[in-house]
Amino acid sequence: MARVNENFLKLKAGYLFPEIGRRLCFFQAENPGKKVISLGIGDVTEPLPPAITEAMKRAVDDLSAEATFHGYGPERGYDFLIEAVIENDFNRRGVKLEPDEVFISDGAKCDTGNIQELFGLDNVVAVTDPVYPVYIDTNIMAGRAGKAGKNGRYDKIIYLPWKAENGFVPELPKKPVDIIYLCFPNNPTGAVANKGQLKRWVDYALTNSSVILFDAAYEAFITDPDIPHSIYEIAGANEVAIEFRSFSKSAGFTGVRCAYTVVPKQLKAYTKDDKGVEINPLWQRRHSTKFNGASYISQAGAVAVYSPEGREQTRKVIDIYMSNARLIRESLSKLGYKVYGGVNAPYIWVKTPEGINSWEFFDLLLAKANVVGTPGSGFGPAGEGYFRLSAFARPADVKEAMERMAHGI
Amino acid sequence: MARVNENFLKLKAGYLFPEIGRRLCFFQAENPGKKVISLGIGDVTEPLPPAITEAMKRAVDDLSAEATFHGYGPERGYDFLIEAVIENDFNRRGVKLEPDEVFISDGAKCDTGNIQELFGLDNVVAVTDPVYPVYIDTNIMAGRAGKAGKNGRYDKIIYLPWKAENGFVPELPKKPVDIIYLCFPNNPTGAVANKGQLKRWVDYALTNSSVILFDAAYEAFITDPDIPHSIYEIAGANEVAIEFRSFSKSAGFTGVRCAYTVVPKQLKAYTKDDKGVEINPLWQRRHSTKFNGASYISQAGAVAVYSPEGREQTRKVIDIYMSNARLIRESLSKLGYKVYGGVNAPYIWVKTPEGINSWEFFDLLLAKANVVGTPGSGFGPAGEGYFRLSAFARPADVKEAMERMAHGI
Repeated sequence: MARVNENFLKLKAGYLFPEIGRRLCFFQAENPGKKVISLGIGDVTEPLPPAITEAMKRAVDDLSAEATFHGYGPERGYDFLIEAVIENDFNRRGVKLEPDEVFISDGAKCDTGNIQELFGLDNVVAVTDPVYPVYIDTNIMAGRAGKAGKNGRYDKIIYLPWKAENGFVPELPKKPVDIIYLCFPNNPTGAVANKGQLKRWVDYALTNSSVILFDAAYEAFITDPDIPHSIYEIAGANEVAIEFRSFSKSAGFTGVRCAYTVVPKQLKAYTKDDKGVEINPLWQRRHSTKFNGASYISQAGAVAVYSPEGREQTRKVIDIYMSNARLIRESLSKLGYKVYGGVNAPYIWVKTPEGINSWEFFDLLLAKANVVGTPGSGFGPAGEGYFRLSAFARPADVKEAMERMAHGI
Repeated sequence: MARVNENFLKLKAGYLFPEIGRRLCFFQAENPGKKVISLGIGDVTEPLPPAITEAMKRAVDDLSAEATFHGYGPERGYDFLIEAVIENDFNRRGVKLEPDEVFISDGAKCDTGNIQELFGLDNVVAVTDPVYPVYIDTNIMAGRAGKAGKNGRYDKIIYLPWKAENGFVPELPKKPVDIIYLCFPNNPTGAVANKGQLKRWVDYALTNSSVILFDAAYEAFITDPDIPHSIYEIAGANEVAIEFRSFSKSAGFTGVRCAYTVVPKQLKAYTKDDKGVEINPLWQRRHSTKFNGASYISQAGAVAVYSPEGREQTRKVIDIYMSNARLIRESLSKLGYKVYGGVNAPYIWVKTPEGINSWEFFDLLLAKANVVGTPGSGFGPAGEGYFRLSAFARPADVKEAMERMAHGI
């Protein structure tokens, strides 16, 4: 008799975005003529620039001719892309990596979801609150989370709340933890960590032989020169941190699918007998057993991001989103809202007005300004009383949304 | 202290293809002038036909314009592809499926590797011997395989040997098993199962509340009208079988990445209290948590496979490979080899001459004919004394390889 993985039954229903969809649907049925502007989704809206689409078309041409056809690529990705990644994203910032420390994939969501397989089920996992739900859900599926409490938290997971009061940088855990998920620039709060703050985490992991799973999917949005782009800018991080990067937000690849993960060879986890085991060859084995490489076309598009034209064109796209972020931040500040993020990240984290919770604010904003955002409580209990607005939208829509909000909600 | 998943340490080294590479490298260093022909790899060699590449270029154009840009697609795949899959691959064969029973992905290897996550760790898993190694390795990683014995087998896995003597259709297990991996048309043996043989398996699973994981990645190579293309052609299979399909071999997508998996809503696995749980919503949850959809470009290419031009052009490519298979089969039969497969599958499974084992035959074939194949023992102990030749090669190369073998090895 086939037995189900009962850990799946411990998952809470995917509440947030379906509920947003339900409320939006209801509103539109009641108000058929009204144009709703969405600042709720973390998906890019600008088309791909020509340097990338031309490279992808050339890749399609390669596949159409006998002499240039590409079948299975290396599971770890093509050298042409790995070399460009190392040179542009790391060497230029003083970080050295070997080619076999970089693994090209089809998405950072996949990688951040799959990485936990390399670790035993008895590890204590820490996440921030609020948090990107994938980190928790994939640990629930594997059986590391324990039971859900009434507060929405799982009893084996350590939650590190971050609030305005601690500058949106989470405190170190009070008890030792084994695996720590960090995301900077952060989704959903838009917070970043400076070198000193990251160093505290790296030192903590070195002291406790912990592993940091560092999600840097929004790295391209950093504007402040003092903010590190990679955790490997911190000494010792290559012994304790795995870093996830993506072309989704930096180059508009959400529909194209290409990302990469860095697993340094120095990084180890331990057997029950405290014997250190290198994680890099295990990820290599996982990658080559359960994955067959990212699309050749996607990889050809990704490498074009690093060409001089590709850099210039993707930078212009990022500037559009960051000017949206600035407009949202400045408009809402003028209106008296407390706003966080949006300087080095495409998300703006807004404190809801006194006495109004996250979902109440969602309903108000939709009813009065016909604008959709994301309730902060959907990212975890400590997100209650906050609201996420996304800069991934057309500039004219952002402008109109801000004008509507200026008329009062 | 971060603990490693010690199940990974139970994996045997990826022996087969690295060892082939090592021996080939050595041979080429010793014999620099000689042209080696590879019939060893299961990767396509023909370029993509124009109906597909033109569709992919149009998809790239979509991504380059504001009005037609596509960001994140549905994790389960675009409706345009799901509808084409259901109509062409199932309805035409009398099988009905709902759209939410089909999950588009980036590869059948990924799906056959990931599917085991939905099932508890205490399930007894059965595989054929020889077998596609992914089925076993992913269960080792999860902790269902137990320990490796000297014979290369894991003590908790049930192995179902198939040999010439039982017509290359494995016997039903003697003890009840919970999860059964079947692959027809088979890699590596090239065997197929007729309706009666598949019905025995479906009935077995219905009786034992087992789940069949049915890998039909080579379905497009079936030529015999009596051989079922889908396990759902067997009554009751929708209660017990998950089916995996791929565009890799049928349409040359090994470098493009697109596949799909069918999880019928009737299929259940059971809790420890014997309560039935539908698997379809769990796969939906896994898919939307750990995956972000196949590339829009790949899906646009895949749907073009079903257009009238796409069908005709991909059929011509398959005919090339099947005419390679026929040539290999007929040539080796004439030379006195016992050959199996190659009629409804792109693989030819050759009995090695009396007294010569799989690796000895590999060495002989390389030395005398400068042809590379795959030792059968690499797919499992029951593959010893067999050798796999692949029809995925250029026709001129296959012809030359057969002429060389005719000169004797």
